[in-house]
Amino acid sequence: MIRLDHVIEAQQFTREGLLDLFREADQMKLLVKEQGCTETLHNKVMVVLFYQPSTRTRLSFETAMVRLGGRYVSTENALDFSSHAKGESLEDTINTVVNYGDVVVLRYHKEGGAARAAKVSPVPIINAGDGPGQHPTQALLDIYTIQNAFHRVDGIKVALVGDLKHGRTVHSLAYMLGKFNVAKIYMVSPENVRMPEALTEYLDRHGIACEACDELLPVAHDVDVVYTTRVQREYFEDLTEFQEAYGKYVLTDEVMDELPKESIILHPLPRNDEIPFKLDRDVRAHYFEQVENGLYVRMALLELLLLK
Amino acid sequence: MIRLDHVIEAQQFTREGLLDLFREADQMKLLVKEQGCTETLHNKVMVVLFYQPSTRTRLSFETAMVRLGGRYVSTENALDFSSHAKGESLEDTINTVVNYGDVVVLRYHKEGGAARAAKVSPVPIINAGDGPGQHPTQALLDIYTIQNAFHRVDGIKVALVGDLKHGRTVHSLAYMLGKFNVAKIYMVSPENVRMPEALTEYLDRHGIACEACDELLPVAHDVDVVYTTRVQREYFEDLTEFQEAYGKYVLTDEVMDELPKESIILHPLPRNDEIPFKLDRDVRAHYFEQVENGLYVRMALLELLLLK
Amino acid sequence: MIRLDHVIEAQQFTREGLLDLFREADQMKLLVKEQGCTETLHNKVMVVLFYQPSTRTRLSFETAMVRLGGRYVSTENALDFSSHAKGESLEDTINTVVNYGDVVVLRYHKEGGAARAAKVSPVPIINAGDGPGQHPTQALLDIYTIQNAFHRVDGIKVALVGDLKHGRTVHSLAYMLGKFNVAKIYMVSPENVRMPEALTEYLDRHGIACEACDELLPVAHDVDVVYTTRVQREYFEDLTEFQEAYGKYVLTDEVMDELPKESIILHPLPRNDEIPFKLDRDVRAHYFEQVENGLYVRMALLELLLLK
Repeated sequence: MIRLDHVIEAQQFTREGLLDLFREADQMKLLVKEQGCTETLHNKVMVVLFYQPSTRTRLSFETAMVRLGGRYVSTENALDFSSHAKGESLEDTINTVVNYGDVVVLRYHKEGGAARAAKVSPVPIINAGDGPGQHPTQALLDIYTIQNAFHRVDGIKVALVGDLKHGRTVHSLAYMLGKFNVAKIYMVSPENVRMPEALTEYLDRHGIACEACDELLPVAHDVDVVYTTRVQREYFEDLTEFQEAYGKYVLTDEVMDELPKESIILHPLPRNDEIPFKLDRDVRAHYFEQVENGLYVRMALLELLLLK
Repeated sequence: MIRLDHVIEAQQFTREGLLDLFREADQMKLLVKEQGCTETLHNKVMVVLFYQPSTRTRLSFETAMVRLGGRYVSTENALDFSSHAKGESLEDTINTVVNYGDVVVLRYHKEGGAARAAKVSPVPIINAGDGPGQHPTQALLDIYTIQNAFHRVDGIKVALVGDLKHGRTVHSLAYMLGKFNVAKIYMVSPENVRMPEALTEYLDRHGIACEACDELLPVAHDVDVVYTTRVQREYFEDLTEFQEAYGKYVLTDEVMDELPKESIILHPLPRNDEIPFKLDRDVRAHYFEQVENGLYVRMALLELLLLK
Repeated sequence: MIRLDHVIEAQQFTREGLLDLFREADQMKLLVKEQGCTETLHNKVMVVLFYQPSTRTRLSFETAMVRLGGRYVSTENALDFSSHAKGESLEDTINTVVNYGDVVVLRYHKEGGAARAAKVSPVPIINAGDGPGQHPTQALLDIYTIQNAFHRVDGIKVALVGDLKHGRTVHSLAYMLGKFNVAKIYMVSPENVRMPEALTEYLDRHGIACEACDELLPVAHDVDVVYTTRVQREYFEDLTEFQEAYGKYVLTDEVMDELPKESIILHPLPRNDEIPFKLDRDVRAHYFEQVENGLYVRMALLELLLLK
């Protein structure tokens, strides 16, 4: 099995480690479906330390822990904690909570928070998002959902769609796709929010064929996975420019007609209008399955970190 | 036993279903008194999704779950969740959290929230208050407290007192009283906050004798149950008018002298001055017993929903 | 064993009771190190009722409860609770939550809150800080850390350093030191934030030699325990005066050279600059051990309160 001390960034995983993890997640799925909960981690405590609220991610981790029989203590007001603490450093806060729990799930508002925490922590740190940095467990559930749908990640053609500059989700995912022999990545985004160069270079070094393009429609017929994200108003100078860009990434009937029957649609959620509600009934819609898979992947991670 | 899929509104219960539920609640009371907790729901997870904080109701549900051996994950900041979610629909949020839990306890800030959630949810939804709509578990604990005191609800004379227009608590209770052969309902309220017509018509259709009146004192001698609620300043045009109205519904010594020895006083809490503190020592004061009964009723509901 | 009904203030403990408690805490330490958790309190529920957020203290109590196998329900927004409750009294809130839990951990924003709660509560109340009042479990962990380091508290020389007027932590500790035959207490503080007279008189009555002084350096060679606290800007008229005072209580290299090799440094945390980060590697730094000991002491208290 893979050995994990901390879960900080997508790059830290190996291909084999990921496949191990996915097999473990498969076991977790069975466990939840058949028993609901187990007692494996009955003597473990998880500290959830969120400097920014994120109910979706927090509840996913907490559910993962309790379904494994573990217990948690939790705050999503850690900023108040430090404020109350009148300027307490992240390191001091970590040095405090490691006395409570056997693992710390950290969401921090600045890039690098999880790495700083890992440096001082004697217990495993899981990065649940560090500002504009990474969100590796989101990427894990994304890839796991692809693996589940196609029984492989190698050879898959992926379209990453929307704002590719600011989304940490899409960055963590791209790093992780680089671990596999993905056949092609279409980077479909407005001109002003293209994928960062560091990432395209990384993918290039890993031999992944990438193609940047403005619109989804022309390439839709050639993809197995459409990974859509929101295009945000704040990054466009004027409303017209934004609306024009926005429209290009909506999964319209036209796009859906082009998309292969066996393709899948992913989204980190929450969605705006880029995925119309009526698509929820389309068999290609896998975005709520992603949420479900998030639970299994996090259970697998917690078990790997706490039972090794 | 009754079958429940969701708990959305008071009207959905039958008389037999309610009596079943109350017998189950009696068992829960025994269990808590004798053992504290059990492990019946050890493999179940409850999601508490509150769009408005309500510590009283939230802690009651969470306690009910853990005393049954279940686990919960919880938020009372779901509005931030959607805001963070930049406009995520209630339906998407429900589609998300149903991947975590086996039951969802929902408090929503707008009427109809629970019904919308039930429409998309594969797991039971419990309405813990939906804006000006209903609060069915409060009504259940109200009726259960009456049943406990008199060993019946049929034949009872009830005075509903205070603001009968805006209180969802009193509406859910009135709907539920309509399921029994209640002997009489006095609707004691200021002119401007009378019981809504829909409800008086509903009670009329169910053959319940109702009488609207302005003051409690003249009818106090004829009631078994006084159900007081707060009269709120905001619904009165001027302060004098408000104060005049307010005074009429305080349980003064004069009113208490009129109230039969075997009658009981209920209140959904929190109270203002309508029930003076000194009444807490009066044997007719049952409002803290309501809180206790709330625990047993919610335990009974959770068991019915999750073990069926 | 000691009998405890409520934990309200440092003065309530006897010397023998404290030593009993510390032996119990030693057992808890063993338990956590060897097993992580136990099931002793599996049928108990703790209500955490915080009127002010304090993540450090809250998570410590919650961890203590779950490591003993117990369950908790929790709020750190109890002020909103009462606000929502439109002026509900603390007593009514306590009368409500005692129907949920077997013990209530209360942080209140005004002095005397815990005593008021204890007066109406049929279940044990633990004071987790009541405004400018006391914080007895912090004092317990402070003394326990001293006991652990020296295997005694009698005969120890302590320097209480910083703002001795406003810190409830240092007050609760001083009251508790009065239970032992402490050899000496240096009260090292700026002139304007000296130890309150009530406390110096209390220590005098208990035969403790006390000495007020302005600077730590001259007395550093003669202390076993340095208990530092923050000096806060808000209590000084001008910045220069503050900065001058502040500098006197920083643990500089000069002070550290004077401090005996076997002495220990304590701090209730969070710290500002009064303890430089580099001291964390000094064997005399025991302030994170205090956090750890807080867990054991609170576990011991919960067991004593709930298993008696």
